[in-house]
Amino acid sequence: MPPTTNGRGRPRLESTDQRIFEAARELLRSKGPAAVNIDSVAAHSGVARTTIYRRYRGRDELMHAILEHLIDPAPLAPDLEVSEKLRWVMDQISDILENRLGPGATAAIIADSDPEFTAAVRSRLAIRLNALADLMSIDIKAGRLQAQTDPDTVLGILVGAYLAEVLRFGSPRKGWMERATALLAPAVVKN
Amino acid sequence: MPPTTNGRGRPRLESTDQRIFEAARELLRSKGPAAVNIDSVAAHSGVARTTIYRRYRGRDELMHAILEHLIDPAPLAPDLEVSEKLRWVMDQISDILENRLGPGATAAIIADSDPEFTAAVRSRLAIRLNALADLMSIDIKAGRLQAQTDPDTVLGILVGAYLAEVLRFGSPRKGWMERATALLAPAVVKN
Repeated sequence: MPPTTNGRGRPRLESTDQRIFEAARELLRSKGPAAVNIDSVAAHSGVARTTIYRRYRGRDELMHAILEHLIDPAPLAPDLEVSEKLRWVMDQISDILENRLGPGATAAIIADSDPEFTAAVRSRLAIRLNALADLMSIDIKAGRLQAQTDPDTVLGILVGAYLAEVLRFGSPRKGWMERATALLAPAVVKN
Repeated sequence: MPPTTNGRGRPRLESTDQRIFEAARELLRSKGPAAVNIDSVAAHSGVARTTIYRRYRGRDELMHAILEHLIDPAPLAPDLEVSEKLRWVMDQISDILENRLGPGATAAIIADSDPEFTAAVRSRLAIRLNALADLMSIDIKAGRLQAQTDPDTVLGILVGAYLAEVLRFGSPRKGWMERATALLAPAVVKN
């Protein structure tokens, strides 16, 4: 079945694309890059291998497509009180680590089991964290955050606060985010 | 060769034990629990499989022996100024994550690729972190640390500060520990 002859046009086409994409993302999230290939995505999505091969020449092309959208380069700057912004930054980081990377990709990066994947995710993560650091720098210059705050150190600690919960408990405990931001806020937010 | 007939007694025996043990620890550290088995330890240590089997009935017994000594239950309480103690706690955590677990075991725990291993390490890590939390509680009661400090949150953030460096850069950047403790100290240490 060629992708545009089912008489319903883009909606059906998008739905198949989406099923492939979501299956690949979920395999990556739960089991890491080694678990993503055309066969596993076919089995997981219910889309025929031949249909997947019409869209992606092979596993590498599929992985590139997933990486392209795995971590958006720049977050939207929210219109929030600075006291709420630390929590917003934490939400951003939590979304990347929980919904996008997941335990599978996170473990693969830490073990560096697929160096090409590690490098690709690290560079995208750096772009995203730098964008968050730039937003924090604006608040430092405006005198809303403590002058001695180092955005990169704060962001590293927020990334780590999530990772430590996963290492210690499998998934973050209820209230972990509130406890971490309560500890950091006095050192970062200006009264 | 039976272990006690080489005419040199314990020194030689200990050396073989140690070679087996170190090889198993290094495999665990670099590649995770799935990489530890009698064959891989024989290849990595240069000790014959039969010699290893004389000490451990199989892979499970070997893993239990490693786990037994992987994370010591209680750290020695150091006689340090409270301002230096945060750095000391960070050293303790860094030793556990870098020298004992390493990227291999850390990734395996995050991905939960071997649930029995995950549970065994988590319970040992909890005992060790609780012992560190108890030491912090003594300093809180004595008025040397801020009264509102939650030791568990501080310890989680210190564990995470290391993990975030590994996730972002492969291994911790120079000065990461100083930057993390400088950020946390004002929120934790009493002036």
